[in-house]
Amino acid sequence: MALIVQKYGGTSVSSTERIKNVARRVARWRALGHQLVVVVSAMAGETNRLIALARELQAHPEPRELDVMVSTGEQVTMALLSMALMELGLKARSYTGAQVKILTDSAHTKARIVSIDEALIRKDLAEGRVVVVAGFQGVDEQGNITTLGRGGSDTTGVALAAALKADECQIYTDVDGVYTTDPRIVPEARRLKTVTFEEMLEMASLGSRVLQIRAVELAGKYQVKLRVLSSFEEESDGTLITFEEDQTMEQASISGIAFNRDEAKITILGVPDRPGIAYQILGPIGDANIDVDMIVQNVSHDGTTDFSFTVHRSDYAKTLKLLEPVVKHIKARGVESGDKIAKVSVVGVGMRSHAGIASAAFRTLAEEGINIEMISTSEIKISIVINEKYMELAVRALHKAFGLEQPG
Amino acid sequence: MALIVQKYGGTSVSSTERIKNVARRVARWRALGHQLVVVVSAMAGETNRLIALARELQAHPEPRELDVMVSTGEQVTMALLSMALMELGLKARSYTGAQVKILTDSAHTKARIVSIDEALIRKDLAEGRVVVVAGFQGVDEQGNITTLGRGGSDTTGVALAAALKADECQIYTDVDGVYTTDPRIVPEARRLKTVTFEEMLEMASLGSRVLQIRAVELAGKYQVKLRVLSSFEEESDGTLITFEEDQTMEQASISGIAFNRDEAKITILGVPDRPGIAYQILGPIGDANIDVDMIVQNVSHDGTTDFSFTVHRSDYAKTLKLLEPVVKHIKARGVESGDKIAKVSVVGVGMRSHAGIASAAFRTLAEEGINIEMISTSEIKISIVINEKYMELAVRALHKAFGLEQPG
Repeated sequence: MALIVQKYGGTSVSSTERIKNVARRVARWRALGHQLVVVVSAMAGETNRLIALARELQAHPEPRELDVMVSTGEQVTMALLSMALMELGLKARSYTGAQVKILTDSAHTKARIVSIDEALIRKDLAEGRVVVVAGFQGVDEQGNITTLGRGGSDTTGVALAAALKADECQIYTDVDGVYTTDPRIVPEARRLKTVTFEEMLEMASLGSRVLQIRAVELAGKYQVKLRVLSSFEEESDGTLITFEEDQTMEQASISGIAFNRDEAKITILGVPDRPGIAYQILGPIGDANIDVDMIVQNVSHDGTTDFSFTVHRSDYAKTLKLLEPVVKHIKARGVESGDKIAKVSVVGVGMRSHAGIASAAFRTLAEEGINIEMISTSEIKISIVINEKYMELAVRALHKAFGLEQPG
Repeated sequence: MALIVQKYGGTSVSSTERIKNVARRVARWRALGHQLVVVVSAMAGETNRLIALARELQAHPEPRELDVMVSTGEQVTMALLSMALMELGLKARSYTGAQVKILTDSAHTKARIVSIDEALIRKDLAEGRVVVVAGFQGVDEQGNITTLGRGGSDTTGVALAAALKADECQIYTDVDGVYTTDPRIVPEARRLKTVTFEEMLEMASLGSRVLQIRAVELAGKYQVKLRVLSSFEEESDGTLITFEEDQTMEQASISGIAFNRDEAKITILGVPDRPGIAYQILGPIGDANIDVDMIVQNVSHDGTTDFSFTVHRSDYAKTLKLLEPVVKHIKARGVESGDKIAKVSVVGVGMRSHAGIASAAFRTLAEEGINIEMISTSEIKISIVINEKYMELAVRALHKAFGLEQPG
């Protein structure tokens, strides 16, 4: 008998018919003798509907009131799933985040979980109940309802699994696992049976379609065994996210090719190479709550260097504006920038022990005539910025070059 | 400066436009220097939408889960109204029933309020906030979310006014007060400036369109000054429901003509007149959770009497079936019954001091050729059962006979 936490996303509970399907799946796990805690999201579309209502009243809805409101989405689903389970003859009981005391800080709309009081859940499990918990929400010390931010239900699932020391946390979604790359671009893309936490973190662009990165981090911290599964397919075992590297000899060196075209790149030319200069450039950008992704600075010539970084495209214009006084102030030579870029990343823990991955990647792109604009690397990832028009070509070529279509 | 509790019903908050109107009205009261606590219902239609969803999963939704679910309706409205108030520059904060600790018993879907912890509300009021509270809901000792039953938001409003010792509880609805009778039947019907609690209770058929009877009872118990107002008209002062009789000399003897055609009458003929017989008849009916309204038993002849009562039409067939063995057992002569009846009631605290009201009512009906089938009286009400086809005629004739179209 295992204790399993399952989380079902919005598309898995988008109608009462689908909720009945979820109930049947839960019932099958229960019939195998397992204890079940089930975390649910709001019915697909409901959170957006509520936010739209709020925006009819306030352009920027007050966060505390917004949280009170959007948290009702999960509250409805949890009750519906409990009813569906009872209808199958199971004992079930639902709880809001406040009721099971998912204590968070008071950062409305993006609260962090501080602790979970699991006593109530353990009692219900001992009495043979399936416990259904509203995802995405908690309560602060003062009793205010908080939410964990978009996709926060994944985080709720992992946090509950950690607090209960569950045997496995299963994230049911509309894809059946993590793939070597996006199958829409590379039809030969293959589902990974396992992937490490570090790889998941680096493969944000692939993984975030499947699972909140924050939930992955939390799973890593508490060593929660995390599995991504499809709620629409019965047969697949999904992808298991492990916190140990696969020790088998046959380990593939590369796990996947990630990519995105959400970024813009900015290069400041002729930056005087002196201490504090990076902070002078990025300080105002950080203060404006703009996230910087890649940062590249090469060795200097004649006391000056070029300083490049990428930001989200939606922050591109604002960032350029913020830089104008900075460029003047530090007496840089100028700015070069562009938002028609794509970032393609080769990810794999195997890189650590396999030399030549980077050069193989560069050669592949060269053979396709694709010019490389920026490069940055970590221990398990090589990210390459190219012209966005070559993105699909680059992804397909790299996927093939590293043999990712072959079963690992 | 007064402390005022306002309650807005579902039609008053049925869209964000209407919620803005409510906010503007609250702001005007606030501008006069008053402290405001505002109780809101779910947006019109929302509670029914949620119940329909639940019924897709369970024919009879489990009460605890149903309460968790339908309570979200008010939770959404309270946040929207808070946002609308902030947008007008007011300080506002919303609370669920659980958050302000409206403690109830655990009778899900029809819970009773046990106590309200008003400390949080008082603190917010002292800090200049408008406090918005979700109507219709509470929380039991174990932290389960409960609801107070249909129209329970009125009860929440009155209970808050009682706990806070508010100067007035204003119930905003889609009619602007209590009328001498239904204006759809008698166009000359007049809005009452005041009506006593007892009259409200007796005028259920008129009053219940406006206000939950249970809320009226609660207001009477705690002597809460209760006013019914329209949320769509600005000018009207509505109807004040008082717990003291009007002591002026010019007091009208009659306040209104109530009526309904929801009932059916049943007469058991030749009932042996002996102790315990009424219980033998009505016991099985009460056990079946059927409410009995009027009960009439006249003096006996030759040791037998006729025993009549009315039930809701929807319980008519079931009641007749339940009576079959009873009639045999008590050896009654038979049953006479009919569901084509109407009950017309003349209501007024003035009756107590004015003789001849009953005979004036009977004369009026006689003049119109309307036969009286049953009569029952209380201190402030005369109820008359007639053939339902005469109902409108009887209401109009009585309204005129007692001069109710004249300003009181």
